[in-house]
Amino acid sequence: MEGPELWRELGQQLRVDSVRAAAVTSSGHPTSSMSGADLMAVLLAKHLRYDFDNADAPRNDHLVFSKGHASPLLYSMYKAAGAITDEELLSFRTFGSRFEGHPTPVLPWVDVATGSLGQGLPYGVGIALAGKRLDQLPYRTWVLCGDSEMAEGSMWEAFEHAAYEKLDNLTAIIDVNRLGQRGETMHGWDLDSYANRAEAFGWHAIEIDGHDVEAIDRAYTEAAQTTGIPTVIVAKTVKGKGVKEVENKDGFHGKALPEPEKAIEELGGVRNITVEVAKPDIEGEPHVFETSGSVELPTYEVGEEVATRKAYGEALKAIGDGRGDVVALDGEVSNSTYAEIFRDAHPERYFEMFIAEQQMVAAAVGIQVRGWKPFASSFAAFFTRAYDFVRMAAISRANIKLCGSHAGVSIGEDGPSQMALEDLAAFRAVDSSTVLYPSDANQTAKLVESMVDLEGISFLRTTRAETPVIYEAGEDFPVGGARAVRSSDDDEVTLIGAGITLHEALKAADTLAGEGVTARVIDLYSVKPVDVETLRAAAEATGRFVVAEDHWPEGGVGEAVLSAFADSDESPRVVHLAVREMPGSGKPAELLAAAGIDAEHIASAARQLVTSTVGAAN
Amino acid sequence: MEGPELWRELGQQLRVDSVRAAAVTSSGHPTSSMSGADLMAVLLAKHLRYDFDNADAPRNDHLVFSKGHASPLLYSMYKAAGAITDEELLSFRTFGSRFEGHPTPVLPWVDVATGSLGQGLPYGVGIALAGKRLDQLPYRTWVLCGDSEMAEGSMWEAFEHAAYEKLDNLTAIIDVNRLGQRGETMHGWDLDSYANRAEAFGWHAIEIDGHDVEAIDRAYTEAAQTTGIPTVIVAKTVKGKGVKEVENKDGFHGKALPEPEKAIEELGGVRNITVEVAKPDIEGEPHVFETSGSVELPTYEVGEEVATRKAYGEALKAIGDGRGDVVALDGEVSNSTYAEIFRDAHPERYFEMFIAEQQMVAAAVGIQVRGWKPFASSFAAFFTRAYDFVRMAAISRANIKLCGSHAGVSIGEDGPSQMALEDLAAFRAVDSSTVLYPSDANQTAKLVESMVDLEGISFLRTTRAETPVIYEAGEDFPVGGARAVRSSDDDEVTLIGAGITLHEALKAADTLAGEGVTARVIDLYSVKPVDVETLRAAAEATGRFVVAEDHWPEGGVGEAVLSAFADSDESPRVVHLAVREMPGSGKPAELLAAAGIDAEHIASAARQLVTSTVGAAN
Repeated sequence: MEGPELWRELGQQLRVDSVRAAAVTSSGHPTSSMSGADLMAVLLAKHLRYDFDNADAPRNDHLVFSKGHASPLLYSMYKAAGAITDEELLSFRTFGSRFEGHPTPVLPWVDVATGSLGQGLPYGVGIALAGKRLDQLPYRTWVLCGDSEMAEGSMWEAFEHAAYEKLDNLTAIIDVNRLGQRGETMHGWDLDSYANRAEAFGWHAIEIDGHDVEAIDRAYTEAAQTTGIPTVIVAKTVKGKGVKEVENKDGFHGKALPEPEKAIEELGGVRNITVEVAKPDIEGEPHVFETSGSVELPTYEVGEEVATRKAYGEALKAIGDGRGDVVALDGEVSNSTYAEIFRDAHPERYFEMFIAEQQMVAAAVGIQVRGWKPFASSFAAFFTRAYDFVRMAAISRANIKLCGSHAGVSIGEDGPSQMALEDLAAFRAVDSSTVLYPSDANQTAKLVESMVDLEGISFLRTTRAETPVIYEAGEDFPVGGARAVRSSDDDEVTLIGAGITLHEALKAADTLAGEGVTARVIDLYSVKPVDVETLRAAAEATGRFVVAEDHWPEGGVGEAVLSAFADSDESPRVVHLAVREMPGSGKPAELLAAAGIDAEHIASAARQLVTSTVGAAN
Repeated sequence: MEGPELWRELGQQLRVDSVRAAAVTSSGHPTSSMSGADLMAVLLAKHLRYDFDNADAPRNDHLVFSKGHASPLLYSMYKAAGAITDEELLSFRTFGSRFEGHPTPVLPWVDVATGSLGQGLPYGVGIALAGKRLDQLPYRTWVLCGDSEMAEGSMWEAFEHAAYEKLDNLTAIIDVNRLGQRGETMHGWDLDSYANRAEAFGWHAIEIDGHDVEAIDRAYTEAAQTTGIPTVIVAKTVKGKGVKEVENKDGFHGKALPEPEKAIEELGGVRNITVEVAKPDIEGEPHVFETSGSVELPTYEVGEEVATRKAYGEALKAIGDGRGDVVALDGEVSNSTYAEIFRDAHPERYFEMFIAEQQMVAAAVGIQVRGWKPFASSFAAFFTRAYDFVRMAAISRANIKLCGSHAGVSIGEDGPSQMALEDLAAFRAVDSSTVLYPSDANQTAKLVESMVDLEGISFLRTTRAETPVIYEAGEDFPVGGARAVRSSDDDEVTLIGAGITLHEALKAADTLAGEGVTARVIDLYSVKPVDVETLRAAAEATGRFVVAEDHWPEGGVGEAVLSAFADSDESPRVVHLAVREMPGSGKPAELLAAAGIDAEHIASAARQLVTSTVGAAN
């Protein structure tokens, strides 16, 4: 069997296997799989170039299920490709199975986790960018999209960027089955509505019947032959196609078929076709960017006034000088985050993402699929825009490095819309995240270097204002550590700060010293993981903490400190200074004072704590 | 002076005043104000219908600066309208001034805070929806957009929804000044690129020279006369228009003019035109939806198995029966969140937002501008998509009510992409937020009723699974409270849960009781504000806590509990059970067990705590 006959039979097999997989736990999305089955049958049997035995092969095509809920279809393709057994397929959605409800990279053939709609195409843009500009290999990226998810703005960020970057190595396939979870989509079967939008955004659009395998074949061929612009295939399909009981009917989204055996019979029974998926036929090795081969971090003199955001840019540029795998992205604020320093030195490895933070984070995730080390920067406040992408990046087990500048009220006149005051909470609550918040330029450089090879999601929070360099160049700042900047055996109270508030804590310690109160000062530059040992030692020594942070009280430095003492016999008394009322505009010093997190408030809290309580060691 | 002559002079005045305002603290965005000055001059002098003495008047038009950084222009308009003095204008960006770097509703004429780009138009959609479908009054909503922000996907969610809802009462004005913060935008002065996209999305588009006041006048007239679809005016403008030193030049974004005096002279000097802004000329009162006038909450029998998400839908419908100001929105999952129960009863007050969570939250913010009480629902995990909108809603001092269903690993087979595990952290770290997490249907109903009149951002987390009703109908659950479900003078340990884990804690307490260990069980249904008093009493009584939550360890129930003891002499020993590894698919019970947050793990932790430590009261 070959050609259209094979494709039609394979489509039916993918349907049958989707129905069977969903029947195992009576959950999943067989009807959404059945609409896309013919589209995927033709792709698998003829157009995809993929070595299933070698999922990381650099010349492989990439296939992303943006409609991740159609996982039964995806896993059925793996079976049809001979990559998994029928038994494995039938572990679908059971405890401990790699075949989860939505695809994740626990499976070697899955590049990125999907299931939050509107994300697969933006990831596809990232992978295609890696192909075009980094690897410089002509592999293709195919993305199967749902029609419902076209309502997500992030899809249009992807359309915009793919056209702007001329990603003719990217093909989006919209499975227009008309029905969303709870009824018809905005546009139903109005294929033109999608095609017109895509064309207005600069794409080539092809409308087809998504169950006509010959039309599908022609569309893929046309997509691959289209140069200079990306192609979208807008395919009219039928949800639940092939089974009368559910076909094109509302009320069957996300449900196993009521009578799977009957449905399988109606679909012509179980098949066991295995297709020989074509291996990559392109030539060449991934591009390697030439570098000096060694990283010489920038250094700063103690006492010099340098913004940590500036040190970020300078360090990243220096790392890029020495390492060709490091790339940078920024969301139209590179002159604020100082990513522009990297851009100017390494323009070929820099991606301007304009004001599209979702696409920026998604591009970073897509780029790391191919082993590159992406650093993406914006104002820390604006990473809230991409929080769902960060959450999903963790499920993708992605290694991405994010830098958020302009933290807290200390930015001054711009006011609260530009102030990150929730970023530490948001990033701490991401699985396997690392959250860093340097106070000094030399420390920043060291931490940026550490981020390159960190696993998972790492986030660096930088400060707008220039602050004095307090550490010698070359000092070590391990992730998970904290630094007792001042410490003696007589310490009566511990002042804890990070970033801007560390400098306030140091000033407060000076004031207190003048009054005869000796204070330990801890730089909590690693907010997650937090240095439990250093904190516990300080608690034992002083029994009293003042924690000051330029952040809302919840989920940030203060609660990170408290968490170190949850399961502990002795907890310090902690006065927690944080931003507790909505700030306005003003000078940085005015706003730090108004929020009660400046040196004066720290000293006052410490003074009160020392006079009102008995310290642990005293 | 009148007509075009007035408009041109007024445009110059708005430029001069923008330059003067930015000069005060040498910060702000005069050049971005100068590009839009003629557009706003014509609007203020002729087309806006607004009673500045009565900002809340129901028939007023609404003006939203989506490009919030052009605040000098907006405030200069207020001066030109006679609403503020020149002195007030010149307090711009100084500490304590209402005239912040970006507009906020601290000013009576500002409906919504902007400054995070890509948000003003989605808010405008919400206001226009309120006009069309709730107030049923023909006031207009005008939104000034920047060209850079067109890269945000949320703008296209707004385009999509405005067309779908036929919002001919909405006019978007794109100030295409070509230059972003760090260089040219994607499309520069290619007006067609914006117009084509807008038309493809179903809008009427008008391209004009944004400095030709007569063309501007004609465009506004045409917009107001266009029925059935919204209108976008794509205006070619020059950034820094009128001052040679900065005009159409890169490098002057977000900067005060280098020589303000010279610039003012070049612009023709200071003017003091006051325009008589037209008052609303439309008739009628805001629509009032007829209701029974009294709320009869649904009630549930103790022991019955009811999902709290179902109770949310039933309670919301019941509240809607009695109160006409309550409205609901949902993101295409109303059959999962059970918002469909409200929809079916009150379709005229229900808004289907499809899969566009950003637009959904923005619509809620826009709708509450007019005093309506919006409840918006989706899977709790997908509110991460709208986190920037929630953050900004707090700056807008908006009163919105959000319900996130499908919390935690307890959802089961769907896997991690659908599990909210960071929502409590994210919502706690929002200014003035209220975070509620009921465990039972009667409690849910009571809390939903409380949310209606709560100020600020309130968030209710609901559970997918059916859980037993444990409280009698009619019991009171004050926001900020906690309930000791089991309590005696002999309690040796306190088990704290919320939502699904409360039921696990109760089972654990039964197990422990069988072993002779008496446990207090606290239902921490109000995660923020947290009930410090009840927690401290439990600490005093038992000295030992086991906290179990279906959430990552950071920023959720556990840290809320710890925060109650920060500045306390005596802290309990806290064993914190939370989700610490990426979950997969499986049955709810399997996943609760795998995460170590089920009854067995709670009992085991309590057992160990009781044998290894000395309790406070023992």
